[in-house]
Amino acid sequence: MRNIKLILKFDGAAYHGWQIQPNADTVQQRITDAVTKIINEKPNIIGCSRTDAHVHANEYVCSFKTSSHISAEKLPCAINSYLPQDIVCIGAEEAAEDFHPIASAKCKRYVYKIQNSRYADPFNRSRVWHYRGKLDFDKMCKACKHFLGTHDFAGFAASGFSAKTTVRTIFDIELKSDGDMIVLDICGDGFLYNMVRIITGTIVWVGMGKINDADIPDIIESCNRSRAGITAPPEGLYLWRVEY
Amino acid sequence: MRNIKLILKFDGAAYHGWQIQPNADTVQQRITDAVTKIINEKPNIIGCSRTDAHVHANEYVCSFKTSSHISAEKLPCAINSYLPQDIVCIGAEEAAEDFHPIASAKCKRYVYKIQNSRYADPFNRSRVWHYRGKLDFDKMCKACKHFLGTHDFAGFAASGFSAKTTVRTIFDIELKSDGDMIVLDICGDGFLYNMVRIITGTIVWVGMGKINDADIPDIIESCNRSRAGITAPPEGLYLWRVEY
Repeated sequence: MRNIKLILKFDGAAYHGWQIQPNADTVQQRITDAVTKIINEKPNIIGCSRTDAHVHANEYVCSFKTSSHISAEKLPCAINSYLPQDIVCIGAEEAAEDFHPIASAKCKRYVYKIQNSRYADPFNRSRVWHYRGKLDFDKMCKACKHFLGTHDFAGFAASGFSAKTTVRTIFDIELKSDGDMIVLDICGDGFLYNMVRIITGTIVWVGMGKINDADIPDIIESCNRSRAGITAPPEGLYLWRVEY
Repeated sequence: MRNIKLILKFDGAAYHGWQIQPNADTVQQRITDAVTKIINEKPNIIGCSRTDAHVHANEYVCSFKTSSHISAEKLPCAINSYLPQDIVCIGAEEAAEDFHPIASAKCKRYVYKIQNSRYADPFNRSRVWHYRGKLDFDKMCKACKHFLGTHDFAGFAASGFSAKTTVRTIFDIELKSDGDMIVLDICGDGFLYNMVRIITGTIVWVGMGKINDADIPDIIESCNRSRAGITAPPEGLYLWRVEY
């Protein structure tokens, strides 16, 4: 059996996230349907992340095993002909037999986009968190630094999520500003359920002046969800890249 | 009567252009409905351009006369509360009594976006012309220069359009490349029906090698629509700014 790795880019606005669910339109369902048409068998497509409803992906990795002989090079165009326009397969390659989109991942990079402007941008509806109020960018940058390194992020996870450990390592976190856009770029060995969105919400709280950046180490250490900021809306979140 | 000038930004994907038509969803209809709710009278909203179906606007100017006392400063938020998310009022001000969005215009700037990539970008569907084939950017830049200045653009107008004269002046035309995006920026005293889209199609024909950039003066001079390039699709076109 061959193990095929696909890379997808998708606008998640219309989907209930990655994972197949009854009575909901999901990215996994759409890609499964498209691949089924190409290889004439129903693949078990494994994704790199259970993205939430309305979350986007710049490079989402998934894989499936098949005995089909279709060349990997021809797969993206073939698959795209059966996908809706908001999901695009941008790459396909043969992967090692033991390649697994989640288990093989070394780090995951997410991007969160906040548009800090008086009026919402019609071209960014469902693609950013539009925030009208004043945000102190310098304080937000300071806040970011406290998340770097290995911490128990139990206070930065939504409930209803089971993980063996709530310890995660953030390798890299940076906030950039470009015009009215504030972009958070965060890379780690893995993220708990809603962790990027709660980190973003906490950094925005610092920008709003609701909490001080110096309080963040204490908030992390408390492992208390109620001390961290709000869960930022899904529209601004992008699974950017998974490295293997 | 006050004369109020509004500035709109809109994603035109869902609309049959600016102008009110029976049985079609138009931007003029939407803004008329919203303003009617605010001023409690039906305004005659005059637009700066009859944009085509699916064409976008970065700063679309329109105006209406009213005896309402609502402050111009408060108008955008009030109007936005009655507009769909793909049309946003980003400014309002008192205009001179004789201000007219078309007649007072000194120049109009349009932007045309071409995404020249192997795969379509799900985040740019309905916002660019996605072109998969090879384009020679340098030749396209050379092609642009021939449009500068005052010419009879009769060959660059769709039929069914009546104008007193087909002579127009292009003040400024520039092609920029940023990653896989090619952006045409064109500014003139006015444009004939479909003129920006036909100029774009002609420049793309040069990029494809179908015609030579050196042939463009001759094509313009011929005033023959059949010698110019195709009409580029509306999705890539943005009315960028009108200067008064």
